[in-house]
Amino acid sequence: MQTLEHHDTIRAVAWTDGALRLLDQRRLPFVETWLDCRSADEVAIAIRDLVVRGAPAIGIAAAWGVVLAARQNADLDAAIARLRAARPTAVNLMWALDRMRARIAAGADTAALEREAQSIQDEDLAANRRMGELGAALIAAGSSVLTHCNTGSLATAGFGTALGVIRAGFAAGKIAQVYAGETRPWLQGARLTMWELLRDGIPAKLIADSAASHLMKSGAVQWVIVGADRIAANGDTANKIGTYQLAIAARHHGVKFMVVAPSSTVDMQTATGDGIDIELRDPAELFAVGGQRTVVEGAQAWNPVFDVTPHELIDAIVTERGAIERPDRARLRAVFGA
Amino acid sequence: MQTLEHHDTIRAVAWTDGALRLLDQRRLPFVETWLDCRSADEVAIAIRDLVVRGAPAIGIAAAWGVVLAARQNADLDAAIARLRAARPTAVNLMWALDRMRARIAAGADTAALEREAQSIQDEDLAANRRMGELGAALIAAGSSVLTHCNTGSLATAGFGTALGVIRAGFAAGKIAQVYAGETRPWLQGARLTMWELLRDGIPAKLIADSAASHLMKSGAVQWVIVGADRIAANGDTANKIGTYQLAIAARHHGVKFMVVAPSSTVDMQTATGDGIDIELRDPAELFAVGGQRTVVEGAQAWNPVFDVTPHELIDAIVTERGAIERPDRARLRAVFGA
Repeated sequence: MQTLEHHDTIRAVAWTDGALRLLDQRRLPFVETWLDCRSADEVAIAIRDLVVRGAPAIGIAAAWGVVLAARQNADLDAAIARLRAARPTAVNLMWALDRMRARIAAGADTAALEREAQSIQDEDLAANRRMGELGAALIAAGSSVLTHCNTGSLATAGFGTALGVIRAGFAAGKIAQVYAGETRPWLQGARLTMWELLRDGIPAKLIADSAASHLMKSGAVQWVIVGADRIAANGDTANKIGTYQLAIAARHHGVKFMVVAPSSTVDMQTATGDGIDIELRDPAELFAVGGQRTVVEGAQAWNPVFDVTPHELIDAIVTERGAIERPDRARLRAVFGA
Repeated sequence: MQTLEHHDTIRAVAWTDGALRLLDQRRLPFVETWLDCRSADEVAIAIRDLVVRGAPAIGIAAAWGVVLAARQNADLDAAIARLRAARPTAVNLMWALDRMRARIAAGADTAALEREAQSIQDEDLAANRRMGELGAALIAAGSSVLTHCNTGSLATAGFGTALGVIRAGFAAGKIAQVYAGETRPWLQGARLTMWELLRDGIPAKLIADSAASHLMKSGAVQWVIVGADRIAANGDTANKIGTYQLAIAARHHGVKFMVVAPSSTVDMQTATGDGIDIELRDPAELFAVGGQRTVVEGAQAWNPVFDVTPHELIDAIVTERGAIERPDRARLRAVFGA
């Protein structure tokens, strides 16, 4: 059996020498270029513009943004407010900033804030490894799986959430084949997940997002495994646009549906998915691919970049605190409290 | 009320001066260039390479291919065989060639074959106008609809099938807003349907294919209206990849699902959708958009370009012979015979 490490070689967020280095995910997989952020504002812009994306990764980046503000003796409340406003849906951003704010309120100095940000990052990696074990335990040997968007090392401190389960399942010899939806409009599946899987030697085939149901009907996949940007108190899960459609199709075909996210993604303050703010982005994101215009001038578009999957369609939510099967309000409360 | 003609200004297949002129749909919407085919082989290649696409349009083009072969005194059986092999899923191609073959068997000369091809083309336009009336009659005033791929003037002799119903429904004041899925990998919705709708003044918004379920959940659409490449004897319908996923989602949300196709798309010789040959195209079609590579070298893909929607998920099949609600084997047999 190959080691897990063999299938986990990528790190996209790195604190070095007083600057936050971000692998620019807009330019992957063909250009591997790093962007150095030296202020909270630069981090906020990098989050907004998708230099760094993935719910856990933007939380980590935001924590380092607070450290940068502290090093510059900037107004920390203002810095936190700007970071918080960078993207609305992923709760990890708010969670990481709340954690930094609590340290500030407790009188932490810059060195202590730096340790807190490093803890957030280190804990995320550890959570991902634990979720990998827990999620892989649910998968039968000889399975094939479908994933959506990118939930790998690029989206986290490393290893990944849904892609971490896939890495662990492959290393354990349980997963034979991975299918990745290309994930329009940003093509995170095509550009990022295929890059990660190829690089780490995991057999993967790309599909058009709209081929998922045809794939399920063929019997080729036993699990859909996705990440999350926010999980409400009843288990309703906001994730990349298209996740909800996959969950409906999975239930229709008797394919199992797993959500994998660290506990920082669980928002017990939001009762149901109806309370989650869904980010609408510029319609222009649908009008071009890779700088190549594909739609006639004057066209309109509707571009929600997340959707909500109701908990009834989810077979398991895996966090580092355990796997919750058939999640609902009572089962989440048992793990996460009120 | 505006006239229907106001919303139907495009013709993509034209017989002129002994050549078949095809609007090159690979280059739309930014380059409007015509390709002249002067032999059956050139027509077969144009069909294979998607210069002309859409089930009715490829049937019409193939009929003209036979005329070109006859004008050159070429081997008509060989020409028909090559045209038939150009694409496997749309039955209109086989239907048009069978019709030309029957005329040849009856001793038709070149002029008579030319008249037959013109009849096939003219009848398709007439069928589309009739289907427009029949389909629009099913739609309540104030509706909004979602469509997939391109089923418009570009895909037919003119006016369109599903898009013909949308044109007629808009002209009748019944349809307020059209949503078009972009239709990866060839982006027929983004490139072609948005171009047709904008050009003909019909309000349209583009969505990512994977946003369809989120759109339906919002209550924004009352009908999904699609075309077909082949309808089996029990109503199972092969159409562009993603159609099946839309049908599952529509049923989940109580949104109605309409298939619009001329009777030449109905294949009573194929009992169910299981008997329909689904075209797999080059995985490379998923690796680039508009010539821009998006996926890392060495990647694999699975690229079925059609899927089958079981008749149980279809609320109405509309042909020029009438609207068949809740289609099944008995109801199709009542209209199309054994």
